[in-house]
Amino acid sequence: MMQRMATTPVPVRTQVAIVGAGPAALMLSHLLARAGIDSVAIDLRTREEIEQTHRAGILEQDSVDLLVDSGVSDRVLRDGYRHDGIELAFGGGSHRIDFRGLVGASTQLYPQTDVFIDLADARARDGGDVRFGVTDVEVGGLTDRPVVRFTASDGLAHEVRADFLVGADGSRSLCRRAVPEAERLQYFREYPFAWFGILAEAPPSAPELIYNHSPHGFALISQRTETLQRMYFQCDPAEDATTWSDDRIWERLQAAVGANGHTLAEGAITSRTVLPFRSFVQEPMHHGRMVLAGDAAHTVPPTGAKGLNLALADVRVLAEELERAVDKDDPAPLASYSERALARVWKAQHFSYWMTTMLHTLPDATPFDVRRQEGELAAVTGSVAGSTYLAEAYTGWPGAR
Amino acid sequence: MMQRMATTPVPVRTQVAIVGAGPAALMLSHLLARAGIDSVAIDLRTREEIEQTHRAGILEQDSVDLLVDSGVSDRVLRDGYRHDGIELAFGGGSHRIDFRGLVGASTQLYPQTDVFIDLADARARDGGDVRFGVTDVEVGGLTDRPVVRFTASDGLAHEVRADFLVGADGSRSLCRRAVPEAERLQYFREYPFAWFGILAEAPPSAPELIYNHSPHGFALISQRTETLQRMYFQCDPAEDATTWSDDRIWERLQAAVGANGHTLAEGAITSRTVLPFRSFVQEPMHHGRMVLAGDAAHTVPPTGAKGLNLALADVRVLAEELERAVDKDDPAPLASYSERALARVWKAQHFSYWMTTMLHTLPDATPFDVRRQEGELAAVTGSVAGSTYLAEAYTGWPGAR
Repeated sequence: MMQRMATTPVPVRTQVAIVGAGPAALMLSHLLARAGIDSVAIDLRTREEIEQTHRAGILEQDSVDLLVDSGVSDRVLRDGYRHDGIELAFGGGSHRIDFRGLVGASTQLYPQTDVFIDLADARARDGGDVRFGVTDVEVGGLTDRPVVRFTASDGLAHEVRADFLVGADGSRSLCRRAVPEAERLQYFREYPFAWFGILAEAPPSAPELIYNHSPHGFALISQRTETLQRMYFQCDPAEDATTWSDDRIWERLQAAVGANGHTLAEGAITSRTVLPFRSFVQEPMHHGRMVLAGDAAHTVPPTGAKGLNLALADVRVLAEELERAVDKDDPAPLASYSERALARVWKAQHFSYWMTTMLHTLPDATPFDVRRQEGELAAVTGSVAGSTYLAEAYTGWPGAR
Repeated sequence: MMQRMATTPVPVRTQVAIVGAGPAALMLSHLLARAGIDSVAIDLRTREEIEQTHRAGILEQDSVDLLVDSGVSDRVLRDGYRHDGIELAFGGGSHRIDFRGLVGASTQLYPQTDVFIDLADARARDGGDVRFGVTDVEVGGLTDRPVVRFTASDGLAHEVRADFLVGADGSRSLCRRAVPEAERLQYFREYPFAWFGILAEAPPSAPELIYNHSPHGFALISQRTETLQRMYFQCDPAEDATTWSDDRIWERLQAAVGANGHTLAEGAITSRTVLPFRSFVQEPMHHGRMVLAGDAAHTVPPTGAKGLNLALADVRVLAEELERAVDKDDPAPLASYSERALARVWKAQHFSYWMTTMLHTLPDATPFDVRRQEGELAAVTGSVAGSTYLAEAYTGWPGAR
């Protein structure tokens, strides 16, 4: 056995180094493994920390198919709930958008944390190299041969040498920042409101999601299980969630949905958080031998439930293009990935913006703005074409690839 | 023959007094006459002044049908040009929205001034009572028995007593202001841009309208005849049209459409005006025995070409409801008119806002906003449902009544 100096990092050789071990990173690692390509994924967070991240729970049809068809798990079908539509509540009434009837697709209610658990289990089952809880991450060699240095959870320094590098390291991405300023464009949008999100121990108030426009602002009534529900209402981005009593929260939510004839089943509120609203895109999504995927490249406001779905759509395309890149040891397919992914990203950015601005009350909204929103909601729900256009986007443009 | 004191107004008795003699007023007068209801229409402007008003030239399918089927004239079919679609130009390319293929309807290029001439001729032909160039108009008795006082073009004072009163007196409506403040709501929106409109002596540059999104702002390429064209580009509301040379105008227009591969046939510019962008609605559209119709009740920005069409849609419904009201001497159907008309008004307000905000560059637009607009345009043109939703609205929701 060789003796190694404490300052010499453990050398690791792989084909694709992945910074990040959230759903996008692990899905990619899984797809690459199926194509015979080996990868190493590292994450600053421990597995337990990632499992505590509560995020969107709506999967597009293609996201579900990806998890099942690629052999990750069929738990999404067993433990998830199929939703064939949503309710758009406004103007004193409620109107269903029938996804299945309009576009022959559905969404699946299945929390992001469970998607992560399934992927982490699948990677462990298949012997994937995933290292959680690392520190001191550094990336380099992007335009030549990528190198990733990190300190593993056992304290040992490592150095990964790879043919390609994937930055799937979330919205505070280190990899994104490694692209020289002159080589990329960044697009931002801040929204003047946020979501106040709660988890409540109560039975479901409705079988499907209710997107509620009202004089009391926007509210979203979602579900989790038979005994636990997820709900949101529009609030100021500076709101302090800890100061709200259960009673005050229920009063606000009941007023919003009551305006359109709905009533909520109440229960103990076990979690309350303020979710910021932000749009972000970095273009292109490649640089030399590195690509960005998921939140590292783009953020959407949560209204259209596109965040996780967009990340999974990224890696579906990325796995294809990386196969070509690895096969020929050629970074050209990475540009193709960027172009294909961005077409969807901007459609999703627009859809998220549309759902957001159609349903929320801007702080400086005039009565004209509110009536116009109601005019739009009436136009969309009153038109088969308008409803179909929304359903296509919400279910993830199935069949449009 | 009776002698009359100079101060005693000439008494006029009619069933429906109409303030205004523009297209909406005359169309209503025509429809009422066909139902055996007599009316008197008065306007502050002379017939010649109204004929000089150059406005939108796109008629919805139902507007065309209304003119032809009610026996006003078939000149709209003979002298107008049928357009089966529009071009949406953006992102370096151009995409046709095929109205006929998508919704089985078309629009007709036919200037508002010709609609007015046809209606004025038809009213004259049928012996309608229309008085142009009046002064000193006053309205009263709205909640009891309406009275309209005015001085005719020959200097004689008149007093019209009617069962019902229609305010079709345009965007600076006198009748609208006669509704007590406590009895109405007004909704406004100002836009931070205007249209610079020109008439040019040139052949058509395209067979159909081109709605052009570009880094140089919005431009609309429209037509008038084989030798005269109407074009617009986005400008500052405070722009002074008289300071622009022909060359400077063509340079601006060519840059805008050139970004998407179009080229304009140039020619002498014979008219240049700045058109303000405004949204306005007054609700309800009735008060006592008075109703408002057309621009008197609502203004839309010109992007969706909805102004005249909305006015004609108003009076189509209003003629029906007034027939009921006159028949029973009961103002209740006026409330029904208001409700039916407003449902369409708010759909059209939204559509006009949508077309405006999808295609124009806001003065404070960030690169994100511009890319998102391109994302939306790609989503709309790339989806049959999205294109159909736009086509339905543009052609006037045919068959939706």
